[in-house]
Amino acid sequence: MPASDFSQAEYDHRIERTRAAMSAQGIDTLLITDPSNMAWLTGYDGWSFYVPQMVILPTTGAPLWWGRTQDKPGAAQTTWLAPSDLHDWPEEHVQHPDHHPVAALVTLLCDRGWTRNLGVEMDNYYYSAASHHVLQQAFGDAALTDATGLVNWQRAVKSPAELEMMRKAGQLTAHMHEVLRAGFREGAPKHELVAQVQAAGVSGLPDLPGDYPAIVPIAPSGKEASASHITWNDRPLTRGEATYLEISGCFHRYHCPASRSLFLGEPPDDIRHAEAAVLRAIDDTLAAARPGVTCEEVAACVYASFERAGYIKANRTGYPIGLSYPPDWGERTMSLRPGDTTPLEENMTFHLMPGLWTPDWGLAITESFVVTPQGGRPLADIPRELVVKPV
Amino acid sequence: MPASDFSQAEYDHRIERTRAAMSAQGIDTLLITDPSNMAWLTGYDGWSFYVPQMVILPTTGAPLWWGRTQDKPGAAQTTWLAPSDLHDWPEEHVQHPDHHPVAALVTLLCDRGWTRNLGVEMDNYYYSAASHHVLQQAFGDAALTDATGLVNWQRAVKSPAELEMMRKAGQLTAHMHEVLRAGFREGAPKHELVAQVQAAGVSGLPDLPGDYPAIVPIAPSGKEASASHITWNDRPLTRGEATYLEISGCFHRYHCPASRSLFLGEPPDDIRHAEAAVLRAIDDTLAAARPGVTCEEVAACVYASFERAGYIKANRTGYPIGLSYPPDWGERTMSLRPGDTTPLEENMTFHLMPGLWTPDWGLAITESFVVTPQGGRPLADIPRELVVKPV
Repeated sequence: MPASDFSQAEYDHRIERTRAAMSAQGIDTLLITDPSNMAWLTGYDGWSFYVPQMVILPTTGAPLWWGRTQDKPGAAQTTWLAPSDLHDWPEEHVQHPDHHPVAALVTLLCDRGWTRNLGVEMDNYYYSAASHHVLQQAFGDAALTDATGLVNWQRAVKSPAELEMMRKAGQLTAHMHEVLRAGFREGAPKHELVAQVQAAGVSGLPDLPGDYPAIVPIAPSGKEASASHITWNDRPLTRGEATYLEISGCFHRYHCPASRSLFLGEPPDDIRHAEAAVLRAIDDTLAAARPGVTCEEVAACVYASFERAGYIKANRTGYPIGLSYPPDWGERTMSLRPGDTTPLEENMTFHLMPGLWTPDWGLAITESFVVTPQGGRPLADIPRELVVKPV
Repeated sequence: MPASDFSQAEYDHRIERTRAAMSAQGIDTLLITDPSNMAWLTGYDGWSFYVPQMVILPTTGAPLWWGRTQDKPGAAQTTWLAPSDLHDWPEEHVQHPDHHPVAALVTLLCDRGWTRNLGVEMDNYYYSAASHHVLQQAFGDAALTDATGLVNWQRAVKSPAELEMMRKAGQLTAHMHEVLRAGFREGAPKHELVAQVQAAGVSGLPDLPGDYPAIVPIAPSGKEASASHITWNDRPLTRGEATYLEISGCFHRYHCPASRSLFLGEPPDDIRHAEAAVLRAIDDTLAAARPGVTCEEVAACVYASFERAGYIKANRTGYPIGLSYPPDWGERTMSLRPGDTTPLEENMTFHLMPGLWTPDWGLAITESFVVTPQGGRPLADIPRELVVKPV
């Protein structure tokens, strides 16, 4: 996603919102390691998050990009930042046992006088305990504030331009599901089916090129599907088994995940029974998902439908989505579950996940939706049903 | 990768080696968060590393798997551990602002009396500063030892069974490069080419199904290739531009990365000149890569070849590879660069990366190899050249 995907006014507005949240938490300088947050604020894009890198947002002035020397040209290519705002740490410190790149960050922060009221994303994949330790040693615990989720929360309500991206991702997701339905047949080795589905997502549609999704296809069959994060293997698809694919198209790093379960042969009554409960759960949730309704109220529609059908769903049933990098396409802010009293706002976007896992099978029919005054509107147009293929 | 890919004797040996390293560092209980390390010790496989999970290795007895309730069936399916050694934390704490899953780990460790001499992987993607903070609060700093890389180092020398996996990954990589060469033509949109190459890696070859590599294709063209971690876009391939693809097949989570540069039309002299330096660098390095030679001595072959050609290569030129999960297929132990005096051992495996990045283009022709008494032996059979396509 080049920075040019969005107007400078939109980036300015994102920074303004972020600074308001920083101010509310007493943070002067925000050290942002989440690649999705980095991209959202500056446009930075590259598979470089396996080494320390950050966007540094001070109280005034432009944000800085900070990363490995080899990645600086990538920052110049993808961000809207001025060349003078790109700062690098020495190549020779890459994965070096005796040098931590964050030591160079300490120098940069000291040079700028940004040594107090620093916000750090304590619970992020790309802010390690070792990175934090280096900052603690340099500035002391009192200088560091936990800012986990601070930027993520600003991303919750999507702009019109972002919704456009997500609808395009949704067209890619729908295309992937079409290819999945067409290729799902008895005896087909699972990995070959997954290869076709992934290729459909990347080669995309006319004027709709695909990017890499933040999660690879989750694709368990039969008893495997009692576990929820199993990827694929080469076992041929077998009659009498339910398979589900949790997949997402990705357009310029924006996502629109959707799962469907598929069945070879005549589904047994218990799976049909579960399907009905899931479909009812989705209908009720989408109808309820209006601005002002809370996350837990929306989620209650799912739990109620399942309870009526005799199932207990003991896990959350949805989460916010948008711009993402591996390993997660969720935004890690709200959850659709009991206890989350966050009110929905117009143009928030969620992956509604009324998945059901039993010891013998799993069923997943899910929808990504945007909150509108008329309720949740799906972001992708995919037949909502258990896909049944005769054998 | 099901645990059954390897014998129990091999797992026992891996644990024994790890315990020797623990003992040398005064660690009684090792808390392992790196998904590659978890898989190497237990076989655990699943895209669940986006929430806290660990393998816990005490001084005696079986290791424990610890993770989210929903992922416990996946641990039962993929590991060799007994059901009683699988422990879960409550679903309702998934990405919850007020509950950290590691609090449940504290309870488990207290129950077992494992509260001192704990080893933690301080510099790992999946051990966050927040996770560490919870353990610090519970047990104090003195109870925690940095064990970053402890297990990774045990993985450096590959077993015959592992080398077999990596050669299979190499066959997949070679197949991906064949598809790349065939599809590389003027006007082809890059994302469509990438889709074909990825699909080739996953659909694989007869009896060689592909898994997802830990890094998606890096695929910059022309000036884009001055940056080293740019993925793809939908720009058509253009005559007069060099494109490189850094890709890897993946077989049961084992990798064999290899890059090739491709050129449309007649390459200019400077790129041919660089190609010659890179090929010479590879020849010299493979000849030198015998047991007992150090990492920096091997790397010197690359720097010398580049220097003779008038280039300065200011970054490392290789790293160990094997079993991996996103975001990195390197093992993060040794580096082929000045200052790394680790001696090579037979059956260590490296990705030799004599990449060259100039402000106007980048060139990458790379090889994955295994150390043998006769020198480095490539793990994949891919024509080693700048691929030139006439226009």
